[in-house]
Amino acid sequence: MIPMYLVDEIILRALKEDVHYLDLSCEYLFDASQQSAADLLAKEPGVMCGGAVFARVFELLDPSCRVELAFAEGQAFGKGDVLLSLAGPAAALLQGERTALNLLQHMCGAATATAAFVRAVAGTGAVISETRKTLPGLRALQKYAVLCGGGRNHRYNLSDGVMLKDNHIDASGSIAKAVASVRAKIGHMVKIEVETRHLDEVRQAFAAGADVIMLDNMSLEQMREAVGYLRAFDPGKRVLLEASGDIALERAREIALLGVDILSVGALTHSVRAANISMRIK
Amino acid sequence: MIPMYLVDEIILRALKEDVHYLDLSCEYLFDASQQSAADLLAKEPGVMCGGAVFARVFELLDPSCRVELAFAEGQAFGKGDVLLSLAGPAAALLQGERTALNLLQHMCGAATATAAFVRAVAGTGAVISETRKTLPGLRALQKYAVLCGGGRNHRYNLSDGVMLKDNHIDASGSIAKAVASVRAKIGHMVKIEVETRHLDEVRQAFAAGADVIMLDNMSLEQMREAVGYLRAFDPGKRVLLEASGDIALERAREIALLGVDILSVGALTHSVRAANISMRIK
Amino acid sequence: MIPMYLVDEIILRALKEDVHYLDLSCEYLFDASQQSAADLLAKEPGVMCGGAVFARVFELLDPSCRVELAFAEGQAFGKGDVLLSLAGPAAALLQGERTALNLLQHMCGAATATAAFVRAVAGTGAVISETRKTLPGLRALQKYAVLCGGGRNHRYNLSDGVMLKDNHIDASGSIAKAVASVRAKIGHMVKIEVETRHLDEVRQAFAAGADVIMLDNMSLEQMREAVGYLRAFDPGKRVLLEASGDIALERAREIALLGVDILSVGALTHSVRAANISMRIK
Amino acid sequence: MIPMYLVDEIILRALKEDVHYLDLSCEYLFDASQQSAADLLAKEPGVMCGGAVFARVFELLDPSCRVELAFAEGQAFGKGDVLLSLAGPAAALLQGERTALNLLQHMCGAATATAAFVRAVAGTGAVISETRKTLPGLRALQKYAVLCGGGRNHRYNLSDGVMLKDNHIDASGSIAKAVASVRAKIGHMVKIEVETRHLDEVRQAFAAGADVIMLDNMSLEQMREAVGYLRAFDPGKRVLLEASGDIALERAREIALLGVDILSVGALTHSVRAANISMRIK
Amino acid sequence: MIPMYLVDEIILRALKEDVHYLDLSCEYLFDASQQSAADLLAKEPGVMCGGAVFARVFELLDPSCRVELAFAEGQAFGKGDVLLSLAGPAAALLQGERTALNLLQHMCGAATATAAFVRAVAGTGAVISETRKTLPGLRALQKYAVLCGGGRNHRYNLSDGVMLKDNHIDASGSIAKAVASVRAKIGHMVKIEVETRHLDEVRQAFAAGADVIMLDNMSLEQMREAVGYLRAFDPGKRVLLEASGDIALERAREIALLGVDILSVGALTHSVRAANISMRIK
Amino acid sequence: MIPMYLVDEIILRALKEDVHYLDLSCEYLFDASQQSAADLLAKEPGVMCGGAVFARVFELLDPSCRVELAFAEGQAFGKGDVLLSLAGPAAALLQGERTALNLLQHMCGAATATAAFVRAVAGTGAVISETRKTLPGLRALQKYAVLCGGGRNHRYNLSDGVMLKDNHIDASGSIAKAVASVRAKIGHMVKIEVETRHLDEVRQAFAAGADVIMLDNMSLEQMREAVGYLRAFDPGKRVLLEASGDIALERAREIALLGVDILSVGALTHSVRAANISMRIK
Repeated sequence: MIPMYLVDEIILRALKEDVHYLDLSCEYLFDASQQSAADLLAKEPGVMCGGAVFARVFELLDPSCRVELAFAEGQAFGKGDVLLSLAGPAAALLQGERTALNLLQHMCGAATATAAFVRAVAGTGAVISETRKTLPGLRALQKYAVLCGGGRNHRYNLSDGVMLKDNHIDASGSIAKAVASVRAKIGHMVKIEVETRHLDEVRQAFAAGADVIMLDNMSLEQMREAVGYLRAFDPGKRVLLEASGDIALERAREIALLGVDILSVGALTHSVRAANISMRIK
Repeated sequence: MIPMYLVDEIILRALKEDVHYLDLSCEYLFDASQQSAADLLAKEPGVMCGGAVFARVFELLDPSCRVELAFAEGQAFGKGDVLLSLAGPAAALLQGERTALNLLQHMCGAATATAAFVRAVAGTGAVISETRKTLPGLRALQKYAVLCGGGRNHRYNLSDGVMLKDNHIDASGSIAKAVASVRAKIGHMVKIEVETRHLDEVRQAFAAGADVIMLDNMSLEQMREAVGYLRAFDPGKRVLLEASGDIALERAREIALLGVDILSVGALTHSVRAANISMRIK
Repeated sequence: MIPMYLVDEIILRALKEDVHYLDLSCEYLFDASQQSAADLLAKEPGVMCGGAVFARVFELLDPSCRVELAFAEGQAFGKGDVLLSLAGPAAALLQGERTALNLLQHMCGAATATAAFVRAVAGTGAVISETRKTLPGLRALQKYAVLCGGGRNHRYNLSDGVMLKDNHIDASGSIAKAVASVRAKIGHMVKIEVETRHLDEVRQAFAAGADVIMLDNMSLEQMREAVGYLRAFDPGKRVLLEASGDIALERAREIALLGVDILSVGALTHSVRAANISMRIK
Repeated sequence: MIPMYLVDEIILRALKEDVHYLDLSCEYLFDASQQSAADLLAKEPGVMCGGAVFARVFELLDPSCRVELAFAEGQAFGKGDVLLSLAGPAAALLQGERTALNLLQHMCGAATATAAFVRAVAGTGAVISETRKTLPGLRALQKYAVLCGGGRNHRYNLSDGVMLKDNHIDASGSIAKAVASVRAKIGHMVKIEVETRHLDEVRQAFAAGADVIMLDNMSLEQMREAVGYLRAFDPGKRVLLEASGDIALERAREIALLGVDILSVGALTHSVRAANISMRIK
Repeated sequence: MIPMYLVDEIILRALKEDVHYLDLSCEYLFDASQQSAADLLAKEPGVMCGGAVFARVFELLDPSCRVELAFAEGQAFGKGDVLLSLAGPAAALLQGERTALNLLQHMCGAATATAAFVRAVAGTGAVISETRKTLPGLRALQKYAVLCGGGRNHRYNLSDGVMLKDNHIDASGSIAKAVASVRAKIGHMVKIEVETRHLDEVRQAFAAGADVIMLDNMSLEQMREAVGYLRAFDPGKRVLLEASGDIALERAREIALLGVDILSVGALTHSVRAANISMRIK
Repeated sequence: MIPMYLVDEIILRALKEDVHYLDLSCEYLFDASQQSAADLLAKEPGVMCGGAVFARVFELLDPSCRVELAFAEGQAFGKGDVLLSLAGPAAALLQGERTALNLLQHMCGAATATAAFVRAVAGTGAVISETRKTLPGLRALQKYAVLCGGGRNHRYNLSDGVMLKDNHIDASGSIAKAVASVRAKIGHMVKIEVETRHLDEVRQAFAAGADVIMLDNMSLEQMREAVGYLRAFDPGKRVLLEASGDIALERAREIALLGVDILSVGALTHSVRAANISMRIK
């Protein structure tokens, strides 16, 4: 789980955006003692993600709020399922509703999209990963949602892995030189990935000792060649192959079947469709 | 424009997520003096939004970076257009690329989606508005993007407008009582909107003196009735009608032609598809 | 109520100012187990405001502190009344005393001043409102205090209402043009107020469709004319009139009796006299 | 001067309160190139304080704003004086006006009140000091305003001086024991002040080795006795006497003439009347 | 004790540094229900400091964690002693271990070093003090550790005491003038210390009315002279003498025996050796 | 380089600790126009680290301050060398001196200690690394200092590498199972390190597919065996060996000569001795 102190920061920031001073609509209609209860209803199938975050919104607004989760993180739900129930002061429920749903719908949306990709490559041996194309301020939640959807996490940031792109390589003169320069300095827990655009660069990256080779925007045929080359020279699979570049859900299985190890999909985090979930006051 | 101190907070938070300690990939390949330049290329048509935010990312990383914007905020661009050019230390350009693009692609994406709705209702007299279904921490940028796309902003938060939903109304006993209770207390700059689900509630809301009446998830026929009722009894258009509830782009014009004043669309901010824009180092 | 997370920020900031490292005076005199109790005594009449804020200071210092409030928010108290009682570790009580009193005395002071104005205009139909002349960092508490004193809140900030002053108007050429320009862009939940200095501007503002017209620093005679004009042309009171400009308590009733809807008083928040309240350790 | 990084925090907090998202009133009326200029006019006499803070507001909004100060910090001004002139983009001037004035009027107000007390005791040898009764979040600015008004600063917080009140003393059994306990532990740069209510306690405090003795809410006669006692036994004025307790301006000179060293006045910071200053766009 | 809200800030900052997103090592090995227990073992003798801080780390990670302290703050422990025991969810214990130990080992280290100096000067009448040479962000904890080790705190910051060095003095022309200028302005709770390098400056500082005289980097012989001079002219010990300048533990007693009042030692906080303590999961 | 926005946070936090309100010692002695200049003098040999951080302190206090660095980051300096020169307003120089030196002395101290270890293992093929035993709030600066001293960085935090200790392993039942469980879930850029205490665990870790094997507190003989085993079964050095556990400088070369790849040294960051550097006003 994401540490709760990171979650609290995100929630408080969201509450400040959404409430600001006073909830005028509740302020003059409810007295503090009025209790209420609500269900959270899925209006389409999806994957649960963010239940604890949702619950935390209400806990921060009023510690007497109670949330009962009906689905575990990562569990699939169907249309019409009640995802969770909550109870507490009516004003707190209405005040937190929008913020809590904004978070949950986004997280479930990202997890659901990830799960679709994971299902698409099931049995191929390939895994699904997101990228650094995340929404500012929400990376922790988005990376976690990818895990809930069955995916794996790529680099968290620029300091926990090296990715050499053409610009880095141009600066050194060659893939070999760039990898060597970086390897000579980085810590022993850091891997080096090299972005390649065609087979010749794949060869160079392999020869240079890259830990991971990204096949960037290659055609199926190019990727097939790259996989073939690598499996011939690296039968022990020391080096991993990552396919990347606007990979649509429809193409995922085909690519996975080529034998690549990872499919990384920017849309999992940069273009999240909110899951259709609504709160129904009882 | 959004005040720059709000933008800076968002950018610094994003940079901390993305860089954290050191950009390992640049740290050992570039020296500080190495300069670079890049273009930003639109890979699909869209609406410009966030040019100053994009530029500010690099300014915060290195004040010697220079960004030249080729499109004004809100201006439409086509596939292949160069949106802006930037130049500066190579390490700064690579370090800021992802953060700056994550922001720009999201903002252009939201503005582009808004513009599509605005075009759909052009000439009908109706305006397009977003909702409070925004992504936590990004409300300021998203609301601004809606403006760039030609839309209008709904409430910024719970303290600058009143929206009475069925739960609020149940607490008071009737629409009339709820509106009266709130009106008796709120400031003179605050409007009251009432959510209605059928014509009878529309009648009650109007009688109660609501400033805006939301037609929530009504059928076309219901909305037509509501508009007809209101225009008969409020010929001077003192009260505005807002259509709401999962309004798809395809249905927008039809709804607008009924004579409602506002169409509010949650997807403009809760389900943003990132604009396809990439940075090409020269 | 103000959301508690906003209050916590203000309290923690105040505690950091007041304690900083160690409370040297308590550090070497009390052991942790020593308990104490105290009463809060009003040394002059006033209006209660900030009881929960006061209690929260001690809760943040030591969760074992207990506060019992004897007066509800907004309730009037007399000289000699015990406003609340508290008990807890002696060191916590002494450490929090100053911070808690600074907050409470300020809030009661603002509420008390507001209540005096509210009493002054009682029965006239006019309401009392504060302005944006608040003390930096304390706006949330001050606006809340005005509510406790029986007043109404004016705009919270520049984004939840439009106020057009002469400078805005000069930029557009006329009141009519300024109102039209803004109306063409703002959201449907936002009202427009126009500042006027004489009857002719009142007429223009009304014709331009202003929602609220401010009579800025006008003489009684000018205000009487303005009210007369408006009530003649707007019998349904669609447009509200706000009197503003250094309104002294002594003049409030006279102005209210003219028939204006709102009296806005900057001194309610910019020149707060702290209520005379002291803590008496038992 | 207060360090600018402390000032910036206060200003940014104030701007967030006052602007929040967009300045709706300016957004649709001014284009970015439109310039403006303004004067700051004193509508009553006072003491200048906060010129740099005022200027910093506009610098943070737009670095192209220019402020020219006509009065030095602490300098007296008269009714009608132009305190400063500013120029810059019209939108920035209007956006920053309220925040900048809220700060300046408060600071000048506090400085002016201090100066009145300082004048009242001129020539008596006594100095004027504020207390810890400051407004949360504004202590730095208020303490600085007291300096500008010619006063001296009392303790900044609980860790830079010891003040023993009756509750501290009760916990130890006697003034002598309390002073001894604290002296045995505190650092060598810290002074100990003891609050006394009558001559007997003054005697005890002096015997205990207090550095400063506070005469708390004593009558003139009691204070005279206390001064007499101390000057007899401490001719070298090693120990200072501080008069405290709701000291009205009218009584200040009388008290000072008794021979006390310090008059501390809570109202200088807890009940500040904003100076009457307004901005006049040229 | 240090106020807990200051401690929380430091802990949360440390946890963000150390965990950041997910504890990958625990995430996939432990389920939430798995409990664990651990002892904290001293691998060398020392002085306890920071038990509450250590405990708070785990409380912030998971409120169900329980810590039992076996040693009081400031109590000496021996090699092999169990300092405290803790129990809670296994993942929380492993996640917090490093952060909690980093804090505790640093604080015990500083307290232990202080205690060594305090023992060295025992019986001489001199006290041990740290300086402002603290580690950024850790001053509160370090100053507190010095107290736990039996030392006294020097100034907390530049605003709670005056220290005049040669540069300050040069600016005024003489020690006498510098002291007089500052005395004429500072509050009555502030002491003035003057840095001196030889007997002549000591004489000047005394004559100028300094409250404390620092003997900066003087030889034993110079310090002896200074003490002799001062005790002759200030038999009542109104003025304190502080020896300073890279004072090694070995020289401390010798210096103290000269009769100085304070030995201030920068190394207590600028060069802390972490206490050797480790956590042993049971 | 560390991103400057991370550095600014640390500096501002340090300045707040050290200045707080006013620098009383400068406030009344210097006028704003008074300029000064200073040299930074090394009083012992060391390695430069933090020049830009030092300069930034003064830049934040007063943009007119100028710092000229005489040594590059990581460059060795000797006793008596002038490390840098600075000039600017006298008050700014004195106000920033302590904060800037606290940072620089700490960073140079860590870099110097690292360089000593790096020299000790020169030519052996082993590299020096720090650990997660860093000082709270200073990890970024400390990790950077290790790089300046010629070392490599270990994990930045718990999310960028996996380290399996006995507790993790016990939870799974065996090294093989623990590694397999984690490998099945982590991202492709993450390495797994396994802590081992004797040869048998080394064998298991190797068989389990660990990327790095830590030899934790082993004797020289045990380490020799471990290296021998690994080099026999992993001639291509796919797996790295890290020696760890209170490694003293004196033992470093001997350990390195055994053929381990990394020596990780906690003391580089948890027990930093400040470099002896002082500022000499000219």
